Amino acid sequence: MIKDLISRNRSYRRFDESFVVSTETLRELVDLGRLSPSGANRQPLKYILSNDPENNARIFPALNWAGYLSDWDGPPEGEQPSAYIILLGDNDISQSTGCDHGIAAQSILLGAVEKELGGCMIASIQKGKLREALNLSERYDIVLVIALGKPVETVVIDPIATDGDIKYWRDEQATHHVPKRSLDEIIIE
Amino acid sequence: MIKDLISRNRSYRRFDESFVVSTETLRELVDLGRLSPSGANRQPLKYILSNDPENNARIFPALNWAGYLSDWDGPPEGEQPSAYIILLGDNDISQSTGCDHGIAAQSILLGAVEKELGGCMIASIQKGKLREALNLSERYDIVLVIALGKPVETVVIDPIATDGDIKYWRDEQATHHVPKRSLDEIIIE
Repeated sequence: MIKDLISRNRSYRRFDESFVVSTETLRELVDLGRLSPSGANRQPLKYILSNDPENNARIFPALNWAGYLSDWDGPPEGEQPSAYIILLGDNDISQSTGCDHGIAAQSILLGAVEKELGGCMIASIQKGKLREALNLSERYDIVLVIALGKPVETVVIDPIATDGDIKYWRDEQATHHVPKRSLDEIIIE
Repeated sequence: MIKDLISRNRSYRRFDESFVVSTETLRELVDLGRLSPSGANRQPLKYILSNDPENNARIFPALNWAGYLSDWDGPPEGEQPSAYIILLGDNDISQSTGCDHGIAAQSILLGAVEKELGGCMIASIQKGKLREALNLSERYDIVLVIALGKPVETVVIDPIATDGDIKYWRDEQATHHVPKRSLDEIIIE
């Protein structure tokens, strides 16, 4: 059931860093993005894969982690992602990726969950820093980074409290809580 | 296998219009969007559902169909969508939906395919006309329309020809062909 996969696909930010995600796995995941819809079928998305510790260490410092957790600087050593898929917009094809990167990223993460992996779409990126780390040509815009690995945290969905606060938080057992709007709140007609 | 669902999820534009998509089905599909990732967990997406002929007839003329098929004005009567899910951005929550609508729309369409339905994400919308048809408040931006129904066309993926043309086309049997870039073309490192 797709609902099961979508429900299990939470945004994970703590991983067993020793778990290796193979290049073949990353290519299979990108293939799911490739087979997904693209506005006017332009397919402007290009992908950079990383799954070795040296490359990963160059990418990690350019990412901003969990903005609402002000007392947490992101995953410590040992819990950092084992792999990244970096989504680029190819300006030689189109100046905009529309919402193609959202479509492709969801396909990729659902594929990751099916493989007992997990990850997080990260849009809060220090793009200049990452461009430099990747030695990336101006031809490409950085649009999204998907962090991947074997999750070592529990993430649960809660109803939104009466104050309407949507900020995720962690309880004393380090379980990550994500308040989600109800179906009745989001369907307006 | 998620790859099977993603592969079967092609953009369908011709439907058995007599096939009824229930409100319950539409709500189940929106729930898949609800459970999908949202940038900074803001969840600015709101949804309007339509599955009755009168409402559908108000929505249809505001949509632009298959831009590359210059000799086709969109599905004729009898082959129009049975239902629509309209994705809105709630400006009271956020001025931008980021790529949330892409993420949610992919979840919704994968759910539709699992239910033996199909559809098309439509971003080429006459927004003023649709706003008027829906009597929609300025609080909401129209970001995407998902057309849904029981597909009555065959859509196939082809490799891109040597001329690099990505425009979809229909052959003499009315099979819809979609050229997709290869995995080696889209992975740049």
